[in-house]
Amino acid sequence: MKHSRLICTACGKEYSQEYFRCTCGEPLEIVIENQKLIKLQFRRSEMLESFSHLLPELKDNNFLSMGEGLTPLTRLENTTLDGLELFVKNESINPTWSFKDRGSYLATLDAINQGYRQIGTVSTGNMGASVAAYGKRANLRTTILISDSIPEEKIAPIAIYGPRVLKVTGDYGDLYHKSIEIGAKAGIYMANSDVPMRVEGSKTIAFEIFLQLGEKVPDFIVVPTSSGGNLRGIEKGFRELKKFGFSNTLPRIVVAQAMGCCPIHLAFSQGAETVSRFIDPCTVAHAIENPFPPSGNAVLKILRETDGITVAVDEASILKAQRDLAEKGLFAQPASAVPFAALNKLQKEVNMKRAVVVAVLTGSGLKYPTILEKHPSKIEITDLISLGETLERNPNCIQ
Amino acid sequence: MKHSRLICTACGKEYSQEYFRCTCGEPLEIVIENQKLIKLQFRRSEMLESFSHLLPELKDNNFLSMGEGLTPLTRLENTTLDGLELFVKNESINPTWSFKDRGSYLATLDAINQGYRQIGTVSTGNMGASVAAYGKRANLRTTILISDSIPEEKIAPIAIYGPRVLKVTGDYGDLYHKSIEIGAKAGIYMANSDVPMRVEGSKTIAFEIFLQLGEKVPDFIVVPTSSGGNLRGIEKGFRELKKFGFSNTLPRIVVAQAMGCCPIHLAFSQGAETVSRFIDPCTVAHAIENPFPPSGNAVLKILRETDGITVAVDEASILKAQRDLAEKGLFAQPASAVPFAALNKLQKEVNMKRAVVVAVLTGSGLKYPTILEKHPSKIEITDLISLGETLERNPNCIQ
Repeated sequence: MKHSRLICTACGKEYSQEYFRCTCGEPLEIVIENQKLIKLQFRRSEMLESFSHLLPELKDNNFLSMGEGLTPLTRLENTTLDGLELFVKNESINPTWSFKDRGSYLATLDAINQGYRQIGTVSTGNMGASVAAYGKRANLRTTILISDSIPEEKIAPIAIYGPRVLKVTGDYGDLYHKSIEIGAKAGIYMANSDVPMRVEGSKTIAFEIFLQLGEKVPDFIVVPTSSGGNLRGIEKGFRELKKFGFSNTLPRIVVAQAMGCCPIHLAFSQGAETVSRFIDPCTVAHAIENPFPPSGNAVLKILRETDGITVAVDEASILKAQRDLAEKGLFAQPASAVPFAALNKLQKEVNMKRAVVVAVLTGSGLKYPTILEKHPSKIEITDLISLGETLERNPNCIQ
Repeated sequence: MKHSRLICTACGKEYSQEYFRCTCGEPLEIVIENQKLIKLQFRRSEMLESFSHLLPELKDNNFLSMGEGLTPLTRLENTTLDGLELFVKNESINPTWSFKDRGSYLATLDAINQGYRQIGTVSTGNMGASVAAYGKRANLRTTILISDSIPEEKIAPIAIYGPRVLKVTGDYGDLYHKSIEIGAKAGIYMANSDVPMRVEGSKTIAFEIFLQLGEKVPDFIVVPTSSGGNLRGIEKGFRELKKFGFSNTLPRIVVAQAMGCCPIHLAFSQGAETVSRFIDPCTVAHAIENPFPPSGNAVLKILRETDGITVAVDEASILKAQRDLAEKGLFAQPASAVPFAALNKLQKEVNMKRAVVVAVLTGSGLKYPTILEKHPSKIEITDLISLGETLERNPNCIQ
């Protein structure tokens, strides 16, 4: 093995691979011997470059990009969902650690290209941070509108980027529509949750999944759904891949919601034409807690036209899915655990044997640290003298 | 422009590009017309695949990778550091949102390849979370040793991954060496901060920077430095690029530390042969608050041999750099703001005109949310009726 040679950084003494440190106290270093001079193969493509022919014509002349998108598709094995090929599209690996950056990037470019000098959005979470980051980076006057019921812990991670933060009292539901109307008059590009450029941003998620699966469309795509903008974008991406001849199928779309706020699931289950406002929403999955989604009706239409599915899951199963995911290395915010809880429920109802399933992990678990209070840490205590003994004891025997 | 056609998702009415929503109330969607069927050019390479000839021979047979590395190199413009070409290597875009994932991935593979069934580390932060994630993902028995002075808010983001968490009372400094010794006896692969595989992980940061700059070595590389493992890896990467003929220069290395814990800076400034323990460390840059770095002497040697530089910065300048960075779109943990504070100081002392400078952003600002208390949010309040008027007012005139 190439790394069988380890040498001490200080005294030069040589060791075999199982050593960690020199007896002289200084660290060891691996010696790489390489005769063949091959070319280094690193490649990181950019969103606009990769998909230019399938995106609106936007120019990034001022280094606005921070490397949004191009996120990993991570395999999950040995879960409670065995029998299907399960992948996670990990959108937490984005510049502000959520999928929102794809749309914020395109929307900010669109605003600049159209000559806007101001940008804004209505948000209580991921989107507020994302628009604040891109707007300030672009040197646009940036305004984030928030509802007056938001706790300080959610405002600070938005405010750190330095936008104008405006708390608006009154009905939060009206704020979405009102802000677009007022923004148009005031010259503010309101990059709200489901504006056209956000949908374009989200569709690159579908393009990437298709390519990461080896030019293959998954059988199922599971999306935690709030406003509906992200789901619309992902569906549009797969639709365009088919339209332009890259693929000849569409995935089956699964809208995953929390029972504590599931307006789209309710409307679809009841065969309603339109989505109604969900009364008294309450869930740990704050990032998808939109009681009256602005793209709800558009999502219903997609579900009807593509034989889609909706699933709503309870709070305990969301928290359990969050823990299960973390034990596979992925710490997701509660909203992003909802698809996994949904899959556990769905596999009892729909035949998913040998299906290729992609669940979208929309944002990082670090976004809402208070949720960790629901996952009490089990901590053992020992001292340096008893450490060896403690390590050899089976922790499962300890109270 | 391709996206000049916008249609309503419900009624199909067509709009020009400046509209956000249909008068019928439903969302608009961009119509992409594309005759040319070009190939989609997305590419995301993996660490082992990209750099296989310059890394130890490790096999990933069980999908351990979660897409670590391959992080963006982001341009920073219009900063207080004008006159130099400044880039940020953004390591917060990693599976557990810090550079530690590169080394944890390789160390976990090494542990599996060597037949270990247990892995562990000594950590209070980024590394604990990273080893917990990879160890649990690999289905190894995973133990994180922490000091007994750590507050619960730092333990929970490690514990969520489900490792065994062991609080060790006694001298934390001794724990590093003692844990490797005990680990060897107990069959635990201790993936501590500067073990050989961590250094190998960090060296891929250098390879990527080199390629992202168009096969060019930067003039300066600025690294927030704690144990010294990451710095050693980055230096080793550039050294190997030269050794194997890819480049013919080395960057000038800048070790950035906080004045509140700067053992390497002190030793180097005083021309000492070895690093001494820093007494009573105290800084907001917790991630680099190691008073007695295990690779301190190795770093001193590197600094001497390569005409390196050390800089220590005060607390106020760290917090200011954190805000400045956020206003450019990058929310870094305080330790990761240290290089920017260091550059502000350094450019007065060293000629950096037209230099290509890369600063390493080691971890996400979301890692330590309590730091946000040091950046009070300025929040304005309005209501739906006055919103238009408020938006048109200059926020700078408001108290």
